[in-house]
Amino acid sequence: MNPTINLLKSHRSIRKFTDEPVSQEIVDELILCGQAAATSSNVQAVTAVQIHDSDKRETLAKLAGGQPYVASAAAFFVYCADMNRPKYACEKQGGDFSPGMTEHFIIATVDVALAAQNTVVAAESLGLGICYIGGLRNNPVEVSELLELPEHVYPVFGLCIGHPAQDPEVKPRMPIEAVLMYDKYDASIFDNSVSLYDDTVREYYKSRTSGKKDSTWSQEMKALVGKESRPHMSSFLKGRGFLKK
Amino acid sequence: MNPTINLLKSHRSIRKFTDEPVSQEIVDELILCGQAAATSSNVQAVTAVQIHDSDKRETLAKLAGGQPYVASAAAFFVYCADMNRPKYACEKQGGDFSPGMTEHFIIATVDVALAAQNTVVAAESLGLGICYIGGLRNNPVEVSELLELPEHVYPVFGLCIGHPAQDPEVKPRMPIEAVLMYDKYDASIFDNSVSLYDDTVREYYKSRTSGKKDSTWSQEMKALVGKESRPHMSSFLKGRGFLKK
Repeated sequence: MNPTINLLKSHRSIRKFTDEPVSQEIVDELILCGQAAATSSNVQAVTAVQIHDSDKRETLAKLAGGQPYVASAAAFFVYCADMNRPKYACEKQGGDFSPGMTEHFIIATVDVALAAQNTVVAAESLGLGICYIGGLRNNPVEVSELLELPEHVYPVFGLCIGHPAQDPEVKPRMPIEAVLMYDKYDASIFDNSVSLYDDTVREYYKSRTSGKKDSTWSQEMKALVGKESRPHMSSFLKGRGFLKK
Repeated sequence: MNPTINLLKSHRSIRKFTDEPVSQEIVDELILCGQAAATSSNVQAVTAVQIHDSDKRETLAKLAGGQPYVASAAAFFVYCADMNRPKYACEKQGGDFSPGMTEHFIIATVDVALAAQNTVVAAESLGLGICYIGGLRNNPVEVSELLELPEHVYPVFGLCIGHPAQDPEVKPRMPIEAVLMYDKYDASIFDNSVSLYDDTVREYYKSRTSGKKDSTWSQEMKALVGKESRPHMSSFLKGRGFLKK
């Protein structure tokens, strides 16, 4: 319908980058785009820690479960949900910060994702490639110590940005019928749409791996949600002052 | 730097809409843009429930704390974090869904925000205006009942989309120095940058309200985080199968 919509629909994660740098001027512009996203009650609970230090990059690549592009991308950020800055402002006004509210956790996590996604769209509009790094949540204590994150701040994900050195296909998504519902939730569509999508995903993997990978979405979901997932997150977050009530 | 970046930086929430409709063809395109956003492990834990029913719209406008644009916007969506669909797929494969993981809550909440923000950018690229409705979390039990949301699904926020009938200023954001840090978290910048931003916010409100509103960011943060905020969210979410471990 227009170039922005075409851009949005052409997203795919990039995991190989060239050596070409991304200037600090560009980085600032990308962050400003992130700041322009909506924010709940103007709380702006987002802090992006850009990692220049190459030793820290290598450490983070390992902490993320061995993702070398964390070290090699031109720019890498740890996106943090930050209730410490609003706490600072509240206390500056003589207020008593109310810690641990689940609502604040939601607000801050959503703020981070909205801002990061704007930064991603801006980066892709400049021909850059990106990859979100959820793997930082494998070792959130170590990531927090490395970046000296205070209480009421947690690392939500990392973000690699750089010049692409690969051109992967766009990954097919669920049929729209399964994700856009009308007036009420309707699970009856799943029997058909999940089966259709399972076939689509199987074909996608087969064509990408010359027939070697044979897996469906349902099989992947069984592997993902059919077992405990990062079970340390609850106690980690409580230890940082989140999700206490 | 380019039209997409200019678009991102010109965002402001719209709370007055004309009567002009938004076609279902456009809505589908906006949702497809949302689906194209990154998703953790391809879980696609996002369900958008579009509300056509005018009675439900009126009810939701009230449940959101009295926000009439929820009823009057051309299109309105309740964005849900949906672990019920991956649960369905997992069980289709004979797996046992592992409920209540905090990690799944983060994954699903981030997925929702990334998808919604893509839909927002796409809408704004077509000249439409948007407003996120966090106020649905005032009454999440009633919203969930109204939309017949099953367990493992929760309403994260609403989203109004329509043709703008107002042209508000872009709201000034925090200085970039306060939100982009390097190699580690550094709170020492706040003394200066929060004071600067307090002045900016005071001037913004004064000019918008002909001098009537006199408030700073720090004062707003005291009002927001200096007290409990939606204290029902923790028990609501646990009751829906989230955040149990």
